[in-house]
Amino acid sequence: AKPRVGYFYSRDNSYLRDFDELYGQKIKEIKSAAVVVKEEASVYDTIVTLFLKDIGSLFIIDQQESLIGVVSRKDLLKITIGEGDIKKMPVSVIMTRMPNIITVKDEDTILEAAKLIVKYKIDSLPVVKIEEGSAESGQQLYKVIGRVTKTNIARVFVDFGLKI
Amino acid sequence: AKPRVGYFYSRDNSYLRDFDELYGQKIKEIKSAAVVVKEEASVYDTIVTLFLKDIGSLFIIDQQESLIGVVSRKDLLKITIGEGDIKKMPVSVIMTRMPNIITVKDEDTILEAAKLIVKYKIDSLPVVKIEEGSAESGQQLYKVIGRVTKTNIARVFVDFGLKI
Repeated sequence: AKPRVGYFYSRDNSYLRDFDELYGQKIKEIKSAAVVVKEEASVYDTIVTLFLKDIGSLFIIDQQESLIGVVSRKDLLKITIGEGDIKKMPVSVIMTRMPNIITVKDEDTILEAAKLIVKYKIDSLPVVKIEEGSAESGQQLYKVIGRVTKTNIARVFVDFGLKI
Repeated sequence: AKPRVGYFYSRDNSYLRDFDELYGQKIKEIKSAAVVVKEEASVYDTIVTLFLKDIGSLFIIDQQESLIGVVSRKDLLKITIGEGDIKKMPVSVIMTRMPNIITVKDEDTILEAAKLIVKYKIDSLPVVKIEEGSAESGQQLYKVIGRVTKTNIARVFVDFGLKI
């Protein structure tokens, strides 16, 4: 019976190891750099930053550099066809605000990030690191340390597909 | 020696079958519906269609319903912050034109589509079917029969990841 046990054991192991190599990759290994904008920036300046950095979404931070919002090309396109003056309007007016932002951490896997992106129909997830704020505020700060997008997922998918 | 041969043969087969199930999926199985706009549509109307359909890119067709261009949220955002009157400007002025458009076919695999998306930094690939045009024109027509986006890739990635 021994060879038979060995047979199934080895096969399962190889199978699991290969998929884990694909799906178990940590966010910190595959993330891209985040681009942040201060909450008082105008919608117009935010769009300029988006084009300069050639990026699809930007993260908005407060005075303490804690994440407070996300703004996408879609949000920006919607406001530019409206009547408001986008050079005077702060981006904080149109951003999606915390706590309605889905975030991930460096130690999460790409499968976890991809599930969130598909489930919530999001283009770009901020990667955050939670820090304690000042004693008087008692607040937690969400420091932005990267972003994960559908592009990162497509890249991991292709890189692995070309290896096998 | 027989069990040993059987061992390696079976393991390799299982390995290949599993990855082929992921990477070998045909475009026709995973594509989304395409949204097309006629070349004379205004930039403004194109943006409205984009929001109504909640989509990232639109394909532009000519009188014979052949693909002649692609326009993305990025193209549209760039033109809206300019000085032109987007209600008078036809979308054909700002679109990316054939032959500078990467297309895929129903029988291509998701790995092939994903490679193109990553290599050319594209959000959305039109899925086309080539037909013969009228005898006098002698032209081939590119009929748009779907689209493949990074969202389709992320969805395939997640669905397969949850199954294993």
